[in-house]
Amino acid sequence: MAEYLSMEHLKFCLFDVHGFNDLLQYPYFSEYDEESANLLLDGVKDWADTEAFPFFREMDENPVTYHDGKIKVHPQIGKIMSDAALNGWIGAVFDYEHGGLQMPHMLVTSLYHIIESANNHMNGYVGLTSGAADLIRTFGSKELFDLFVPSMMEGKWGGTMCLTEPQAGSSLSDITTTAYRQEDGRFKVKGQKIFISGGDHQYCENFVHLALVRIEGAPKGTKGISLMVIPKYRWNDAGDLTYNDVITAGDFQKLGQRGYATTHLVFGEQNDCYGWLVGAENMGLPYMFQMMNGARIDVGLTAASTASAAYYASLQYAMERPQGRKLSRDGKKNPEEEQTLIINHPDVRRMLLFQKSVIEGSLSLLLECTRYADLAHVAEGQEKEDALDLLEFLTPIAKTYPSEKGIDAVSQGIQVLGGYGYTMDFPLQQYYRDIRIMTLYEGTTGIQSLDLLGRKMTIKNGRLVQLMVEKVSATIRDAKTYDDLKPYAIILAEKLKDIEGVMSHLLPYAMKGNYERFLADATIFMEMVSTVIIAHQWLKMAVKAKEGLITGKMRFSTDFYESKIHTMRYFFKYEVPRVDSCKMTILNPEELTLPLSELKVFI
Amino acid sequence: MAEYLSMEHLKFCLFDVHGFNDLLQYPYFSEYDEESANLLLDGVKDWADTEAFPFFREMDENPVTYHDGKIKVHPQIGKIMSDAALNGWIGAVFDYEHGGLQMPHMLVTSLYHIIESANNHMNGYVGLTSGAADLIRTFGSKELFDLFVPSMMEGKWGGTMCLTEPQAGSSLSDITTTAYRQEDGRFKVKGQKIFISGGDHQYCENFVHLALVRIEGAPKGTKGISLMVIPKYRWNDAGDLTYNDVITAGDFQKLGQRGYATTHLVFGEQNDCYGWLVGAENMGLPYMFQMMNGARIDVGLTAASTASAAYYASLQYAMERPQGRKLSRDGKKNPEEEQTLIINHPDVRRMLLFQKSVIEGSLSLLLECTRYADLAHVAEGQEKEDALDLLEFLTPIAKTYPSEKGIDAVSQGIQVLGGYGYTMDFPLQQYYRDIRIMTLYEGTTGIQSLDLLGRKMTIKNGRLVQLMVEKVSATIRDAKTYDDLKPYAIILAEKLKDIEGVMSHLLPYAMKGNYERFLADATIFMEMVSTVIIAHQWLKMAVKAKEGLITGKMRFSTDFYESKIHTMRYFFKYEVPRVDSCKMTILNPEELTLPLSELKVFI
Repeated sequence: MAEYLSMEHLKFCLFDVHGFNDLLQYPYFSEYDEESANLLLDGVKDWADTEAFPFFREMDENPVTYHDGKIKVHPQIGKIMSDAALNGWIGAVFDYEHGGLQMPHMLVTSLYHIIESANNHMNGYVGLTSGAADLIRTFGSKELFDLFVPSMMEGKWGGTMCLTEPQAGSSLSDITTTAYRQEDGRFKVKGQKIFISGGDHQYCENFVHLALVRIEGAPKGTKGISLMVIPKYRWNDAGDLTYNDVITAGDFQKLGQRGYATTHLVFGEQNDCYGWLVGAENMGLPYMFQMMNGARIDVGLTAASTASAAYYASLQYAMERPQGRKLSRDGKKNPEEEQTLIINHPDVRRMLLFQKSVIEGSLSLLLECTRYADLAHVAEGQEKEDALDLLEFLTPIAKTYPSEKGIDAVSQGIQVLGGYGYTMDFPLQQYYRDIRIMTLYEGTTGIQSLDLLGRKMTIKNGRLVQLMVEKVSATIRDAKTYDDLKPYAIILAEKLKDIEGVMSHLLPYAMKGNYERFLADATIFMEMVSTVIIAHQWLKMAVKAKEGLITGKMRFSTDFYESKIHTMRYFFKYEVPRVDSCKMTILNPEELTLPLSELKVFI
Repeated sequence: MAEYLSMEHLKFCLFDVHGFNDLLQYPYFSEYDEESANLLLDGVKDWADTEAFPFFREMDENPVTYHDGKIKVHPQIGKIMSDAALNGWIGAVFDYEHGGLQMPHMLVTSLYHIIESANNHMNGYVGLTSGAADLIRTFGSKELFDLFVPSMMEGKWGGTMCLTEPQAGSSLSDITTTAYRQEDGRFKVKGQKIFISGGDHQYCENFVHLALVRIEGAPKGTKGISLMVIPKYRWNDAGDLTYNDVITAGDFQKLGQRGYATTHLVFGEQNDCYGWLVGAENMGLPYMFQMMNGARIDVGLTAASTASAAYYASLQYAMERPQGRKLSRDGKKNPEEEQTLIINHPDVRRMLLFQKSVIEGSLSLLLECTRYADLAHVAEGQEKEDALDLLEFLTPIAKTYPSEKGIDAVSQGIQVLGGYGYTMDFPLQQYYRDIRIMTLYEGTTGIQSLDLLGRKMTIKNGRLVQLMVEKVSATIRDAKTYDDLKPYAIILAEKLKDIEGVMSHLLPYAMKGNYERFLADATIFMEMVSTVIIAHQWLKMAVKAKEGLITGKMRFSTDFYESKIHTMRYFFKYEVPRVDSCKMTILNPEELTLPLSELKVFI
């Protein structure tokens, strides 16, 4: 069987780099230990080997179909829903009292990484059901929980998040799906939602849509948005499930992720669709952002996982495919010599190291995020607040970096295979199609970048950034204690200062009220900051690897630990210089994407 | 009808920037003038509007099929072959005495650009037939010409280039297709070729394969490669066409360009396949490089053209799709305000300007290359040699930059559309798949980069680079005469110096015989140099635009000329800084993709 991820790297990140075991000191997680975590992950790997990986090409070749209002997905979707329920994955992070496993997010994310690497078309069905159930659990009443969540945790009912409408994509203030209060206090809903992942299929009896709606008479804009549960089938007075007037109007045919349904839903065409308000009126957006933030991390994870599978496919090819010869001292090749494997060509190694550095750096960042999610849950006081703030700061980066660079990584994977990479005979072309959506899901790169520069850098008087700077500085201090890591620590400290310099250049625009100018290059700023953040992950990994090599306390081989340091060096030589080019662009005073009224530049 | 290229930009490059009219002073081109060139291009645009553009999605959705040894392509392939013959496009650059039109390469390339932008699946069939005919004309005997070329010019016989074999992709020294000399002096051929574009279809009666083979007993390596014509049907003694034992063994199914056949050919399975030697024995590689160099320019052109079509598709969407609101002075949005078009969001403009700068810069470079191809043909003495040298220098760049950055440009085109860009309802996803092959065709980016750094920078004692530097310096001088272009001229001069600095760093490795180290970062060097070369194109375009604005001698509107200067400024702010990050990487002394024997970094 072909490999699709490195279990070693996953465990290295989990246990060595991000201190999973420290987390277990919190009583909430007292039933977990390293051994059980290892067993769980190895079990999931076995499951993915047989139930997920063998089907990823089939799901592409025989994609989701839509016919007569019905969506049909691959049979393995039925398998993952039932196995996820059986294993408790759907409500894994819930308290025991809610039927959950009190599993750390770090572990759930690790588990998802294995499944997503094996097959990026499957886990979304589980993840969305889990996220939707969590949203009801967090903000809904006990009544609402009892009505919907148990069936979701059993995998019988699927969950979704419904935000986008045909006329309102990234701009949520324009949603028009409307809830009308009835005389009995209930709400009837009318409207349409598009791009709803996992919105329907034959393996769930019911679908529980968590939808943003506008209650009739609510204020305009995002302040008038409420969160509602809109099931496809509702309980009637007799206690039976009855159709709730939710039409599946279509399935979007996509470039990739073709095994993952992307539906078009119509609520209330027969004026018989009821919705259940979650929490308070007009609080929909802040509520939804709990699920949205989780979904953003999941998208980053799916991107890193898809790129991981592509990396291992190209690595395998490079280690098996002979072609060309090494150069001899005079720069010529000797045709008498045997062909060499393509992995021995420096440019092929460069492409592979690029992929490796992107994927492994991304996974490390994602696990750091989930560690903060866990601390935000179980810690208290300052520690909890710090964790929440760090998670908030890192979320747009953890969504964007793996997506943007993951696309580049998979593209390099194709390039490693040469012409074969472009043929349907190899899986690279599929990964290339699959991963392309990740910069679009759950807020495009442009939206994430506005969030980073326009909110996360400035809210709470810059406290979020300050906390991040402290974390990076601590790693820099640690790295400086090792002679051979010191040069990289110094570079990272410089780049951190560069971010400061860029902010001093940009903030005056905001202070003068010129927000457009302040935010015009937000996406370049995102590339700059995210490169520094991943450089930080690499330095942190190198420190942990160094510690292992020196103390001899190593989970894996010496080569494994040395390869982490090597990849860190790769990242600093080949990727970190982008920080400088981004800086040059941002500091450049020219205003070329403004003023907004001038269209003639596109003549 | 949707737009897919800018005829204005094409004509601006042709007439204003690269002086098509100057070329006409050579008697060889005396039958051409600006008016006839304009008429020709407008006529081709009309043709492409009706015969090419309406079919590009159909060719993707109903791709080339292979069944029982037969390839079936879309009916419009028949149309383009016959219309190309009718209009004289196939032998357009040939002398009148060879039945050609003595058309400047600049004009042929312009014509191809229109067709490729309209539909990138069609023109390859014409271009390869034309290139193969040209190869026979240049190096073959009159007898060979008469046997094959007239039917090719009539579009009845298709032409191909056959290099790749299953065991030898980029490494041509390993080809094993063998020609056996018969007692009558003829050659029988045995072997296989893969990835042969346009290698078979139902609209040509015969296929004329220009193949690299090894004559039995030839020296090993590239020195033992000969060029042969291997037709699918040969003339027998009775003067009839008889089957030449060339089997079409398959058609590769690809990620994109699905209307363009990519065949697998088997020669001589029944030991009845004859080949005709072109020119001298063992001279195959240098001969083939005439066609290969032309094909490399064509790949760059197809990339720029595909990216052009994607750009106009995303521009149209951006100008029609309302979404979100402008930021007000306090950074908030007013939901009472009407939605704005997405083109008014700075980040969307940035993505559009990126696409525009890549596509228009690429086209300008490609037309400069074809100008040199024309001069190499009609000029004499020093001028001819200079043109040849400049063309040789620019060819790997003109192939690589449009391909590499064209992929990024199309990806940004998807991003402009948001989620819709990922659906099959819009053409962006197709362009994204189509363009991905351009970095692989006719020598991957890695191969082009080795050619640039390892050969073009050093041969003739650096004379090629020197010539290029003189050209760039002349533009810098011109630009410095305009106050508002001067700052960009100064930057370009600095970047030119940066290349020099990087070479001083790298050359000692080559001198000490460490070629592997010298070439290890060739691909980064390519990115650096090609960015400078495109920056040069932009400065040159800005100078010409400025001249037009000042003198009032303008073919198009003032806005058009100002938009060139605007896009130049975009390129200098957003793209030129990459030169610096590439420089940092190359000057970094770490050796991370060497030594070749160490595989453990991928553990």
